[in-house]
Amino acid sequence: MILDRVNMPKDIKTLSIAELKVLATEMRELIIKKVNTIGGHMAPNLGIVEATIALHYVFDSPKDKIIFDVSHQCYPHKILTGRKEGFLNPENYLKYTGYTAPEESEHDIFKVGHTSTSISLATGVAKARDLKDEKGNVIALIGDGSLSGGEAYEGLNNAAVLDSNMIILVNDNDMSIAINQGGLYSNLKELRETKGTSSNNFFKTLGFDYIYVENGNDVEKLIETFEKVKDIDHPIVIHMQTLKGCGLLQAEQNKEKFHWVCPGILDEQSAVPCSVETYDSITTDFILEKAKVDKSVLAITPATPGATGFTQEFRSALGKQFTDVGIAEEHAIAYASAMAKCGAKPILAILSSFVQRTYDQLSQDLCLNNSPMTMLLYWGAISGADCTHLGCFDIPLISNIPNMVYLAPTCKEEYLAMLEYAMTQTQHPLAIRVPFGPVVSSGKKDDTDYSQLNKFKVEESGEKVAILGLGNFFKLAKEVKTELKAKLDIDATLINPKFITGLDEELLENLKENHSVIITLEDGVLDGGFGEKVARFYGNSDMKVLNYGATKDFTDRVPLDVLYERYRLKKELVAADVDKLL
Amino acid sequence: MILDRVNMPKDIKTLSIAELKVLATEMRELIIKKVNTIGGHMAPNLGIVEATIALHYVFDSPKDKIIFDVSHQCYPHKILTGRKEGFLNPENYLKYTGYTAPEESEHDIFKVGHTSTSISLATGVAKARDLKDEKGNVIALIGDGSLSGGEAYEGLNNAAVLDSNMIILVNDNDMSIAINQGGLYSNLKELRETKGTSSNNFFKTLGFDYIYVENGNDVEKLIETFEKVKDIDHPIVIHMQTLKGCGLLQAEQNKEKFHWVCPGILDEQSAVPCSVETYDSITTDFILEKAKVDKSVLAITPATPGATGFTQEFRSALGKQFTDVGIAEEHAIAYASAMAKCGAKPILAILSSFVQRTYDQLSQDLCLNNSPMTMLLYWGAISGADCTHLGCFDIPLISNIPNMVYLAPTCKEEYLAMLEYAMTQTQHPLAIRVPFGPVVSSGKKDDTDYSQLNKFKVEESGEKVAILGLGNFFKLAKEVKTELKAKLDIDATLINPKFITGLDEELLENLKENHSVIITLEDGVLDGGFGEKVARFYGNSDMKVLNYGATKDFTDRVPLDVLYERYRLKKELVAADVDKLL
Repeated sequence: MILDRVNMPKDIKTLSIAELKVLATEMRELIIKKVNTIGGHMAPNLGIVEATIALHYVFDSPKDKIIFDVSHQCYPHKILTGRKEGFLNPENYLKYTGYTAPEESEHDIFKVGHTSTSISLATGVAKARDLKDEKGNVIALIGDGSLSGGEAYEGLNNAAVLDSNMIILVNDNDMSIAINQGGLYSNLKELRETKGTSSNNFFKTLGFDYIYVENGNDVEKLIETFEKVKDIDHPIVIHMQTLKGCGLLQAEQNKEKFHWVCPGILDEQSAVPCSVETYDSITTDFILEKAKVDKSVLAITPATPGATGFTQEFRSALGKQFTDVGIAEEHAIAYASAMAKCGAKPILAILSSFVQRTYDQLSQDLCLNNSPMTMLLYWGAISGADCTHLGCFDIPLISNIPNMVYLAPTCKEEYLAMLEYAMTQTQHPLAIRVPFGPVVSSGKKDDTDYSQLNKFKVEESGEKVAILGLGNFFKLAKEVKTELKAKLDIDATLINPKFITGLDEELLENLKENHSVIITLEDGVLDGGFGEKVARFYGNSDMKVLNYGATKDFTDRVPLDVLYERYRLKKELVAADVDKLL
Repeated sequence: MILDRVNMPKDIKTLSIAELKVLATEMRELIIKKVNTIGGHMAPNLGIVEATIALHYVFDSPKDKIIFDVSHQCYPHKILTGRKEGFLNPENYLKYTGYTAPEESEHDIFKVGHTSTSISLATGVAKARDLKDEKGNVIALIGDGSLSGGEAYEGLNNAAVLDSNMIILVNDNDMSIAINQGGLYSNLKELRETKGTSSNNFFKTLGFDYIYVENGNDVEKLIETFEKVKDIDHPIVIHMQTLKGCGLLQAEQNKEKFHWVCPGILDEQSAVPCSVETYDSITTDFILEKAKVDKSVLAITPATPGATGFTQEFRSALGKQFTDVGIAEEHAIAYASAMAKCGAKPILAILSSFVQRTYDQLSQDLCLNNSPMTMLLYWGAISGADCTHLGCFDIPLISNIPNMVYLAPTCKEEYLAMLEYAMTQTQHPLAIRVPFGPVVSSGKKDDTDYSQLNKFKVEESGEKVAILGLGNFFKLAKEVKTELKAKLDIDATLINPKFITGLDEELLENLKENHSVIITLEDGVLDGGFGEKVARFYGNSDMKVLNYGATKDFTDRVPLDVLYERYRLKKELVAADVDKLL
């Protein structure tokens, strides 16, 4: 294997073009095997193999700095920068993260996992270089999909006026995670079709020098191009066309499905229709039904339809009642808020980690205007995810904004009742934290009147201790109740708060009569969250309050059971705390 | 006066062009007089008088919907939509807000005060119209300065593919609040210079139809143009060149100074250099001194240099060590974070209300990467500001992000010591909440070692009650201490927390020995803030905790003393609460 001789970037600089091509094949095989084994980003990495080889062949990392957008396409880069063992031996498959990680290698400049950041980061790297009178190339590698994000544009606008070296390598594979959306993509298409010669050129209007590379999977062509721009004294965009999933036929033919894959994707038998009910399927069924009878119902995704169960079939069935705004979360909120203000019924599905892009839009475009839009928050939970994709910060982010009503259902029936309420109410912005995990059923229809805001539900009355189990953690609350009975003979009161954004002050006041301890359980970070508000409420009283949730921390792929232990999110640990207190 | 005959948009539709021109002059005079009397946005409103008249002449508001970006240019619109009394009679000057306000008029669609939102909002309005099979034009009015914001671009990208009526009126006066920044502005200049004929056209690359209007202060020309596009069946950009400050010579000649003005701007004598020390001047003096000895020091503003005391002289003195990134707050954080990561010393000055644009960048680009950048947070305080520009939400926004260190100085000496620490430390992102109000001096140098994180300072030891007075409210804490002594004969402990992002757990633990009540005072919203963390800490103990701060609410121009009364932020009210508790 050529790869036997390659450990670091310098090792490829003496290889022939023919050897580099073999190397590309070897790397591709490793990536396919590893991703098929443990899951991960398949198609983005297959498309960028040649460009990564050419970058390390021409430029001198880490003196020259390569900044990856999203960085889910950094696997080839990791192979070439001292980390091939993470791909060669299945025992080491989990040794390195799926994103750039400075603690792993000096060739990784930033921890990155959200899109559209590379150009701004690169502009800062270049400006620091200039102020410190240093040398070196700064290269931002960004996909066409990421270019729709506002931060990418703000970066482009500023990078363009940087009066020194800056290379923006646009990896145009004509795909975001799903199909690209928006006016920009007609221009990229025109540029591809004219081999970059059209006078109608988005990048040039912003002031960039520009080069087009027709085949971004041709390592020889890429090397030639990169050598031309190396040490250039001004900002330039290299627009290269690549094939997403290149080298794996199934991925080339089904780019969305192969963007990120679960283990065993290549071993799958012919698709068997999935009959298991999930919160995704409950949601899409609900939307389809509503959309049929009300033509103003619109489902919106910011470029992550797959992650929220918005399948191809679902999108097709909705037709004009579905909008993918592309990677444009800020726009998504303002757009949906305006629709709701005008009497339509937008339903925005967004992941907890990506809603972080929208604080000001939630505040100004949405809540200040009190528009009755519906936002469904997915993947909001403490998890073993990468540090770049944690879903534990949305409660502090969303729930401290005035006017917002943020609901936490604990079962299918509540979720459906809340969805129903969302479609009929016209009073305020409504967000629902979609339950995480397998569907739970209470077995009975929920006929709560959710227009009575901040009414918590007492599921079982007891005394001494009251347990507030929010959303996903209602299950844990029930376990704690059982444990308290078994170990301490306490008949605890069990409460399902349902509302994250406000307290049921009357109920909390009444609990003072025959309770001395309140336990709050929330599936997210404690700082700025739900439990602290309960603690504040009882601050002037004798009530003891124990808040359970996550510590303020960027955890990185820490197994969930380790986190639960660390945060004492276990029935026996909570019971022990209560025992100590009483 | 022509205006005597004009109350609502329909009244201008029968006027002749000559009469419309007189009307413009009359409106301009009213605006100048009012703004010179009570302060407000001068130049933006003077520039848009003719366009506003032409819009209401041609289109039929509110069936046709005009959506204002920032909406600080809506004064002429208010005059023409039933609210001229707010401009005619000084007694009514405060009757209407300086921004669009749906509660005032059906001609105002949204509450808006932040930039770059209009296109996204308009796209939502248009989509709702289409889904509901309604008719009418949707017009977004946006300034050239706002076009650098990411949300504007995300909106453009999506508006371009809307297959129906959408008119984006770009009000190009070649100015943001300060000078425009970024590659886009070369293109706008090229378009102005070629009267829109250049083939290099930013808007066309995104797929828009496009018309250029050379003189956007020529009401006749504008009417002609608007009539051409009325009821158009696809998205179009009208790029009109206007003169910011038009009709007021001083404003035309000094656009930045006249963007927003204090009362009496026109009555000012020749400028007397201001010799009063402010936190702004302390900051700029500090930066200038540091920048001289360290060439990697860079001051950054996202288009609001004036609001943070970054004067023309300051900017000139810094030269390449100053960057105005334009309205691009997201970029600003990523850019500064990257610089800090590369060993430079960026100092970003940003207003509390606008930092809201950057939650995800603070989280991902900055804190996850633990870059030692310095962020100075201005105007962070409970205030009588418009609901669109409140500065009371930054503590929950910033302080719940892992790795961030957010400091709250209480006087000049502490502020300087914290700035000094910011420039030397390399451990974590550092934000300082610049004190609000006149400079306070402790009279003695602060030699605290701020690398010892989360060490609160006990200013005076006492017993029974401990008062934690955070930042701006340390002054109130001292007053409360005096009041407690006078009224209840309590020698309270007085604590200056200094750190917003973490608790001094050792100190708080020790307070349990001889204190039974803790008071927290913070100049911001309570929800998700500092005091709640203290309440959580003491949740399992007998300590009583009273949290003081603002209620979660969008207050709108409510006088500060009313708010302080409402929130019980007065020494005698706090003392009364303590009395009740003991």
